[in-house]
Amino acid sequence: MSAAITKVTVLGTGVLGSQIAYQSAFKGCTVTAYDINDDVLATARKRFATLSETYAREVPDAKDGANEAALTRLTLTSDLAAAVSDADLVIEAIPEVADLKRQTFQKVGELAPAKTIIATNSSTLLPSELKDSTGRPDRFLALHFANRVWQLNTAEIMGTPDTDPAVYSRVVEFAKAIGMVPIELHKEKAGYVLNSLLVPFLHAAAELAAGGYADPADVDTTWRIGTGAPLGPFQIYDIIGLNTPYNIMAHGDAESQQLAAWLKTNYIDKGKLGVESGEGFYKYT
Amino acid sequence: MSAAITKVTVLGTGVLGSQIAYQSAFKGCTVTAYDINDDVLATARKRFATLSETYAREVPDAKDGANEAALTRLTLTSDLAAAVSDADLVIEAIPEVADLKRQTFQKVGELAPAKTIIATNSSTLLPSELKDSTGRPDRFLALHFANRVWQLNTAEIMGTPDTDPAVYSRVVEFAKAIGMVPIELHKEKAGYVLNSLLVPFLHAAAELAAGGYADPADVDTTWRIGTGAPLGPFQIYDIIGLNTPYNIMAHGDAESQQLAAWLKTNYIDKGKLGVESGEGFYKYT
Repeated sequence: MSAAITKVTVLGTGVLGSQIAYQSAFKGCTVTAYDINDDVLATARKRFATLSETYAREVPDAKDGANEAALTRLTLTSDLAAAVSDADLVIEAIPEVADLKRQTFQKVGELAPAKTIIATNSSTLLPSELKDSTGRPDRFLALHFANRVWQLNTAEIMGTPDTDPAVYSRVVEFAKAIGMVPIELHKEKAGYVLNSLLVPFLHAAAELAAGGYADPADVDTTWRIGTGAPLGPFQIYDIIGLNTPYNIMAHGDAESQQLAAWLKTNYIDKGKLGVESGEGFYKYT
Repeated sequence: MSAAITKVTVLGTGVLGSQIAYQSAFKGCTVTAYDINDDVLATARKRFATLSETYAREVPDAKDGANEAALTRLTLTSDLAAAVSDADLVIEAIPEVADLKRQTFQKVGELAPAKTIIATNSSTLLPSELKDSTGRPDRFLALHFANRVWQLNTAEIMGTPDTDPAVYSRVVEFAKAIGMVPIELHKEKAGYVLNSLLVPFLHAAAELAAGGYADPADVDTTWRIGTGAPLGPFQIYDIIGLNTPYNIMAHGDAESQQLAAWLKTNYIDKGKLGVESGEGFYKYT
């Protein structure tokens, strides 16, 4: 029985990195949040303050000092060596640039002790594309979170053929310990589970609307009534923001590229990016 | 402004035909339910009695005599000429055999008065494949219901290039009048809206499980958490029953056929057909 993961280092303090760090600290881990310089860390400090307010509002357990205690377990640093020097687990959440990730993993592999497990939160790269750069492929895997981790609490876990099963199991336990529902991938799959479902689903919806078969609102109504879901596909587009599906479609086959062009011309170019811009397929106030 | 549709004839008293007839009668239409002989009509009578009980249990408005009144507005007959002789709208819900439908439409086209609109409830045939057999393609279109019409109350409405827009509009109004949410298709599309979304969605889910990437229950959990839906794809398989998606996949491309074979070997051949058989991807009691 291996020891539980309690010392966590998160590399990158962007939207998701800061959420992963905060959630881990909130659930009792000792967390180091690393980013490249003091300016970025100043922004990270604001993110954590905002997250603390969000948790106070939205997370039932964030009371009786629990939320303040989370902040006391969080350390911010721009010193990578110090950040990883005693980590049980390093979770990488830096920009989605393969070479940047590989360079970072190489440094971490050299700086971290032998015990340290390294995980990538990458949405678009498979762990096998990154594993060699860590120098410890047996202790490397993907651990993929969704935006708003305190609410959309899936943690998709995906190893490579080199990942030690004991390491995989420890990360599954860690995911549970920080309040996530572990989703175990038995083999590598681009898009993990959620995006493997969402991409063809959103594609099919775009085909209906772009092809002039049915209006987005009617497509959504059909899905809601037919499946009991609270949201139809175009409501999901608006929540995700149209740029992400656009980017995926723009890199797809000819048919996907047509749908991307439709999204761009009719929505993105008109500033209709989804909920965050106030309008997408629907208007928001 | 055309007159409202109030006299409805439903051809076929199977699962969906009987529901369409009952729902139309329940909402105040004068309904004739046609089927081929007295034996079948005896079964239909039992279906209507069962539907009446179901409405009493599940439909909030089915009280204060409303449910009994529905039965008084329903006539059963095996005389096609009498069935259509004064119909505003004939809704065809007979077996999914193209030639059988065409033969029936030819007779209806000859027997029905000029005013009669003809609609097909076909799930798998496009109305343009059937329109000429009616002798009145301008008064013909598809009006597609979902099983459990009192609950899954979408009515997908799809014309052909020959359908008179005024006829289309009258059928939209009819759908509303009988408590359906009209889903307007502007062009013909195999699978209408719901199946155009469901088929690729269920396909993507099967790929994940058949490919050994993730377990069905984890796939469902991911979808439920990620989108807030009450049901994941494999729960939907179980509700639909595995034979229907199997049949669709078995007629698809090579990849779809592989998924069909997976469904057959691992579930259908073992009697795991879904909720109705007591077990599918999940067990039911």
